Amino acid sequence: MPDGPGHFVPARSGFTCGFARTGGPGQTGSVTASPSAPAPALRLALAQVNCTVGDLAGNAETVVRRTAQAAAAGAQVVAFPEMMLTGYPVEDLVLRPSFRSASRTALEKLAGDLAAAGLGETAVIVGFVDDDGLPRDASAFLLGGAVVARYYKHHLPNYGVFDERRYFAPGTALAIVRHLGVDIALTVCEDVWQEGGPFTVAGAAGVGLVVNVNASPYERNKDDVRLELLRRRAAEAGAPILYVNCVGGQDELVFDGDSMVVAPDGSVLMRAPQFVEDVFYVDVPLPAGPADPPDVLGEVMSVRRCDTGVAPAPPRELRAGEVAPRVRDEEEVWQALVLGLRDYVGKNGFRSVVLGLSGGIDSAVVAAVAADAIGGSNVYGVSMPSVYSSEHSRSDAAELARRIGADYREVPIKPMVDAFLSALPLTGVAEENVQARIRGTTLMGLSNAEGHLVLATGNKSELAVGYTTIYDAGSIGGFSPIKDVPKSFVWALARWRNEQAEARGETPPIPPNSITKPPSAELSPGQLDSDSLPDYYLLDEILLRYVDLDRGTAEIVAEGFDAALVQRVARLVDAAEWKRRQYPPGTKISFKAFGRDRRLPITNRWRETG
Amino acid sequence: MPDGPGHFVPARSGFTCGFARTGGPGQTGSVTASPSAPAPALRLALAQVNCTVGDLAGNAETVVRRTAQAAAAGAQVVAFPEMMLTGYPVEDLVLRPSFRSASRTALEKLAGDLAAAGLGETAVIVGFVDDDGLPRDASAFLLGGAVVARYYKHHLPNYGVFDERRYFAPGTALAIVRHLGVDIALTVCEDVWQEGGPFTVAGAAGVGLVVNVNASPYERNKDDVRLELLRRRAAEAGAPILYVNCVGGQDELVFDGDSMVVAPDGSVLMRAPQFVEDVFYVDVPLPAGPADPPDVLGEVMSVRRCDTGVAPAPPRELRAGEVAPRVRDEEEVWQALVLGLRDYVGKNGFRSVVLGLSGGIDSAVVAAVAADAIGGSNVYGVSMPSVYSSEHSRSDAAELARRIGADYREVPIKPMVDAFLSALPLTGVAEENVQARIRGTTLMGLSNAEGHLVLATGNKSELAVGYTTIYDAGSIGGFSPIKDVPKSFVWALARWRNEQAEARGETPPIPPNSITKPPSAELSPGQLDSDSLPDYYLLDEILLRYVDLDRGTAEIVAEGFDAALVQRVARLVDAAEWKRRQYPPGTKISFKAFGRDRRLPITNRWRETG
Repeated sequence: MPDGPGHFVPARSGFTCGFARTGGPGQTGSVTASPSAPAPALRLALAQVNCTVGDLAGNAETVVRRTAQAAAAGAQVVAFPEMMLTGYPVEDLVLRPSFRSASRTALEKLAGDLAAAGLGETAVIVGFVDDDGLPRDASAFLLGGAVVARYYKHHLPNYGVFDERRYFAPGTALAIVRHLGVDIALTVCEDVWQEGGPFTVAGAAGVGLVVNVNASPYERNKDDVRLELLRRRAAEAGAPILYVNCVGGQDELVFDGDSMVVAPDGSVLMRAPQFVEDVFYVDVPLPAGPADPPDVLGEVMSVRRCDTGVAPAPPRELRAGEVAPRVRDEEEVWQALVLGLRDYVGKNGFRSVVLGLSGGIDSAVVAAVAADAIGGSNVYGVSMPSVYSSEHSRSDAAELARRIGADYREVPIKPMVDAFLSALPLTGVAEENVQARIRGTTLMGLSNAEGHLVLATGNKSELAVGYTTIYDAGSIGGFSPIKDVPKSFVWALARWRNEQAEARGETPPIPPNSITKPPSAELSPGQLDSDSLPDYYLLDEILLRYVDLDRGTAEIVAEGFDAALVQRVARLVDAAEWKRRQYPPGTKISFKAFGRDRRLPITNRWRETG
Repeated sequence: MPDGPGHFVPARSGFTCGFARTGGPGQTGSVTASPSAPAPALRLALAQVNCTVGDLAGNAETVVRRTAQAAAAGAQVVAFPEMMLTGYPVEDLVLRPSFRSASRTALEKLAGDLAAAGLGETAVIVGFVDDDGLPRDASAFLLGGAVVARYYKHHLPNYGVFDERRYFAPGTALAIVRHLGVDIALTVCEDVWQEGGPFTVAGAAGVGLVVNVNASPYERNKDDVRLELLRRRAAEAGAPILYVNCVGGQDELVFDGDSMVVAPDGSVLMRAPQFVEDVFYVDVPLPAGPADPPDVLGEVMSVRRCDTGVAPAPPRELRAGEVAPRVRDEEEVWQALVLGLRDYVGKNGFRSVVLGLSGGIDSAVVAAVAADAIGGSNVYGVSMPSVYSSEHSRSDAAELARRIGADYREVPIKPMVDAFLSALPLTGVAEENVQARIRGTTLMGLSNAEGHLVLATGNKSELAVGYTTIYDAGSIGGFSPIKDVPKSFVWALARWRNEQAEARGETPPIPPNSITKPPSAELSPGQLDSDSLPDYYLLDEILLRYVDLDRGTAEIVAEGFDAALVQRVARLVDAAEWKRRQYPPGTKISFKAFGRDRRLPITNRWRETG
């Protein structure tokens, strides 16, 4: 551990960092603020970039490339997301000593590579996995070819999709680096979500800036929550917070960026758009680090200070940061679904997708998302009519493919259905399901033959109540783009996407008939979803309460919902757990998605009453 | 919170517990040890029982029934497992306030029901989920119709299959109940697995007995580890430990019992057999609680003492406990598989299972396990020959069914294969896979038509390297009994089960030819597993290191394995994660099973070298 925690020096001003600088950048030597020194100010770069889990070399290359871009724009400090080097979440890879070792090595190499690329004068703050005897979710401060400081995440989330207590030991020391005259505190992600801890300590230590690196997954309405949190923490720290988040998809998660800098008075100094990969800038005037920094004895964390010895050199003229406008819910979710699918396809080495097109709204929205993600020409739609299929199921499917420019074919399943029904005595639901599974087998066969990723088309409502045939075309494959989208919101997305296309003078991707017709699985004559389920708008209201918010059935009934219906929905949800367990992953957009986010036993006799 | 933590009184002797006793059992009033008092000794009952997740009423009924059995046998203290009332693990049910509330109510009701059943004089220690503002993994001491004391688990496991930091707040106070003159400390499960904490405090507090209630899942060789741990903790506490564990299956987990009482000198005072549901007894002479119990200030936990006021009344004659012999590995695993499957079937409301019989070893072992679990007449075997199937695939399958008394039918798949191949241009692997998936669809159809649970037949080795067709007969269904059994051990199990039958003069269930013939998927002419994979005994050695032990490839090569082979196996394992994610649950028998136990990203570019 040549530059582990021992690399820091005690909480005194005037100490230089322990890295060797030979002909280094700018001024060297210890700095104490004095009236003659220039007023500190920094040009900050927020590298809102897309990294890939496990691709240490590729991610490091992204850091070098984006740092060069930021340096060329005059940035003095460039912040990259949490676990930028390793990707996030790496899950049980952390348990592999070989992986932790590789992450440490990659960080050292990155520091050297940055200097070798002539970027040694630019301070780079970057997340990685460290190991000082215990695994750590860490952030490092790189300068002049060296790792100047390391900080270990203090608050480790262990709820929702997060299992960080499984992997990491919590840090107990705040790292503060004096650079360009400013005391910069390093923090990581969850540190900003909890009361107390690093931000309180940063406030007591009198820092000028807190850098918070993130891998914060998207969910609806989270951007508003984030801003309020950052306002509280900035006030707590008495200093601006640089909050940088990644963009990109990783299995069930999609990261939306939304990077920003928030001042202690709550004002937003800059804010990046969601789902856009780029480097964003803001110039911030900052107080000089005090000559005699205050002691933080008695706080929940200790402090490790270090001084790079580089004197203040503010940007020539201060420029304000841009504040990207917020977008409406449908647009935000659509972007999340597009990015989540694009990255699942691309990062797993696929170039095309195949899915069943039923003429209904679910497959139409999945196909349109796929077309936006990887281009319509890489989308392979298959209509698989049975004897119960309506004429419009084919015409609407064909029309959809035409509108998005997808490949389209029809594979009538009657011959396969006949073969099964001759061999096996199947009637009723068993006969319905064999049709559905023949479609699943057909898509998997085309995937094997042609190399496409199979997309499942099920939505959150039907997955919740188990209104789905396991292993059918709606539930097989590698990825399920709308598995976390309630049916009522699937329609809203379709309408929004069509309106957006119209506003741009483009062809709306979704056939209007797919939006307006009543939903049907078409597995028996005249079948409609409404034969088996309540109206989806009503169903989704109950599901929101029972699934997403964990409310008891008595509580839901007390809100005015019909007691028998609430009980029936709860029973359906409970009984479908085994199907959900085998469902392909899909992009989380809600507070509580099926998957890592909601872990329920299959064997479960708990039945709420009331 | 009528009887929350405030129910305890400070660490002083002579205080009575706060429960109201009207005409209660035995002597009342505070107890201080004196030479004239009878030497304390207790008849302990270890209720090694099977509870069901979510079945609060049924589990409480089990407590009453087993307490009556124990009381009739003269037991003074009956200990039930961790979360006896709720089942374990209840996972995200804990996040539902309605569930936590129901658990608290069920505990109060249980205390009353015990007294109403005339069992108020018997002390019952039972696990449940409590909520004192924070969710707690709790153990309660019930006596005289009241909840006398509560203890909150201190060490919360958050590794392997455990997510307890997600659910519970750790307790910070050790509960010590003076009853029948003995100071009894309450602890829960993981408390025994960690150095320091409750056992150290119990030692400092000078207790006479520590009761440790468990829901400790089975894995190979864990029984030996448990005993060593208990020896260390008993020495730490300076008192015997009553360790009680449940038996039964819950999704991926199976609990093996192995309840025991270990003295501070390391001797085993009693030990229950694994996988047997019953109440086990031992009489233990114990020291009287000291008149002036020592202070534990400065320890990691505080102490909350209470005194039931019931004077010593040892059993009339002390009887030694029985120590069940250990059994060999194959027998232990076979029992685990049988119980895991039986409980998945029964607790989920099924009465029969259906599976594909290929004539090979995997399906033969699964069928034999199923026959042992639920009776051969409830096992429905289906041979689904294709044009590539050998004659012995049918004859061995039929022979197996005959030996175990299973229902047997043949469904040749050629007509369905022909229908698919006429409709779709499938060749090579795509053609192989369509055959495999037609078998999956066939079994699901029979399940839908006849109500059987479908069993997947895949083993751990093929699941590890992805040598399986997703959605085929080996990987679809509700439960996969041998998913955690390496192929080499599947053979060992088959041999052991046949030998055991022979030793008993019974028909060996597995056809010898299924054990001795080379494994083949029979999806193309003359195909053998060994065409694609190394010898399974070699493969399993590499998998043990790469998967179960998280060793790096360089480290495995350094152990003497072929570098190219190790790399190839590691690549196969990494690439098959998406298939494993959709695999049905199956009984964990190893240190690290696929499922909750091993959480890896699907999108993952980490490739080890060396």
